Amino acid sequence: MFNQLGVIGCGLMGGSFALALKRAGLVRQVVGYSKSPSTTEKAKRLGVIDIAAESALLAVSGSDLVLIAVPVAAIDATLKAIRHLVESGVLIMDVGSTKRDVVDTARRVLKDRVDCFVPAHPIAGKEVSGIDHADGQLYGGRQVILTPIAQTRPELVQKATDLWSAIGSQVLKMSPENHDAAFAAVSHLPHLLAFAYFSSVAKQPAGREFLSLAGPGFRDFTRIAASDPEMWRDVLMANREEILKQSLRFRHTLDALEHVIKQGNGDALEDLIRSASEMRLGWQMSTPKR
Amino acid sequence: MFNQLGVIGCGLMGGSFALALKRAGLVRQVVGYSKSPSTTEKAKRLGVIDIAAESALLAVSGSDLVLIAVPVAAIDATLKAIRHLVESGVLIMDVGSTKRDVVDTARRVLKDRVDCFVPAHPIAGKEVSGIDHADGQLYGGRQVILTPIAQTRPELVQKATDLWSAIGSQVLKMSPENHDAAFAAVSHLPHLLAFAYFSSVAKQPAGREFLSLAGPGFRDFTRIAASDPEMWRDVLMANREEILKQSLRFRHTLDALEHVIKQGNGDALEDLIRSASEMRLGWQMSTPKR
Repeated sequence: MFNQLGVIGCGLMGGSFALALKRAGLVRQVVGYSKSPSTTEKAKRLGVIDIAAESALLAVSGSDLVLIAVPVAAIDATLKAIRHLVESGVLIMDVGSTKRDVVDTARRVLKDRVDCFVPAHPIAGKEVSGIDHADGQLYGGRQVILTPIAQTRPELVQKATDLWSAIGSQVLKMSPENHDAAFAAVSHLPHLLAFAYFSSVAKQPAGREFLSLAGPGFRDFTRIAASDPEMWRDVLMANREEILKQSLRFRHTLDALEHVIKQGNGDALEDLIRSASEMRLGWQMSTPKR
Repeated sequence: MFNQLGVIGCGLMGGSFALALKRAGLVRQVVGYSKSPSTTEKAKRLGVIDIAAESALLAVSGSDLVLIAVPVAAIDATLKAIRHLVESGVLIMDVGSTKRDVVDTARRVLKDRVDCFVPAHPIAGKEVSGIDHADGQLYGGRQVILTPIAQTRPELVQKATDLWSAIGSQVLKMSPENHDAAFAAVSHLPHLLAFAYFSSVAKQPAGREFLSLAGPGFRDFTRIAASDPEMWRDVLMANREEILKQSLRFRHTLDALEHVIKQGNGDALEDLIRSASEMRLGWQMSTPKR
């Protein structure tokens, strides 16, 4: 049980976390801050937070748990704004989709107090963002990756693990480097491809007509192309090295498929499709037992 | 009301069509044929067809409506097998995902009797195939594209339109060429990209670990990578020219995105993502009013 949760960034992720903790009875009160005062006010009106703070620093004051739920590019400024009130034993987490850059920033800004920071990445989200879509169930049945470093206090890693588990998430630990390599492959590249693919269809001369004919396969394939532009700008920039590596790998596989198509080699094409199709049929998303 | 439907190819598409017509009371009896006798037998046992025919020709005999629901590459052989029993006024349709090649084949094989053939492409399907998954609702709320040619008898086009409408589909007409260009963009290319992307992730050294971390975005993006290998081999081969054109377009857009990423130009990247994201948010799949 925490006494006070300070949420910095009252959007979908931060708001959903506050709701989940309240629902689970894990926190006495929630203090929230957002850059836009109207967002903070709305979060209060919706009952997502109890007290609207006028600064990030005031949201941290008196909190034994802090969630930084701002775009990755704003974590630097956020940590600078709060570092003077980060006391030993306070658990600070983020929700960023990249971890190497966040860890580097935390080391640089928090210095000794980086021991309080448990970098976190919940594998959850929606295409819609903002406090209006906050949902206390968002993290239920989802994986949460923690990427502690050598300095991180083990008891805070344990607290973080217990906390996410208590709201229904499955907690995994890995290094920031492994995290970024893995998510470049299974999350960041697909977003890049979906943005590119949707644009390329929509912006061609007959794009509007083509879009009117698209069916359920197209709908699901392009769902993530509707994702938040600011967040994905930051992710694609922060993890660009790994993402470009994965993109190159993808282009080689696409080249191989197109090569057999151009050759008219139906058997080879069928083999390549079959191996993808069988592996995909055998794949299932990991979800914890509820 | 049709007296007898002959279904050639008792799989997901053919079986679902038979069930939908029966449910709507549009057909007195259904005769079915599949290459594999065990499939034909199963279709009968499941009540999808009433009579199991021992050949494609026997499935056509006495039928005033014929659905050819075989892989596109098998349409040539199927039309050759049945052409001697194609009588004036019989409505013959296929369900192929490409139309130029099917129309060429029908012209060549059926000669004068090509006037009975109404090329059809229902925008419906599942990742699973086979008679076990036949579903009388498969075509409800879906678009069906008819691509008649100059020789096609207008009254058969009208019959086909009424028939699909009666089982809940929305019928559109276009030329085979426009059809293939449009579906290269909104269906065939995404399948190719999904096969390539899933393979490239799964076949890398850490692929198994990466796949265990993938979330709902990945799940939806790769859903179509599980599609039927034989069917998609035929589609990608038959429509390769248009698909390769669309792939080139996609690669240019991907290049543009990667270019601004490499430049570190966050503003330009955000603009590109935002235009994709806003267009995708504004897009909705066309579905007829039920």
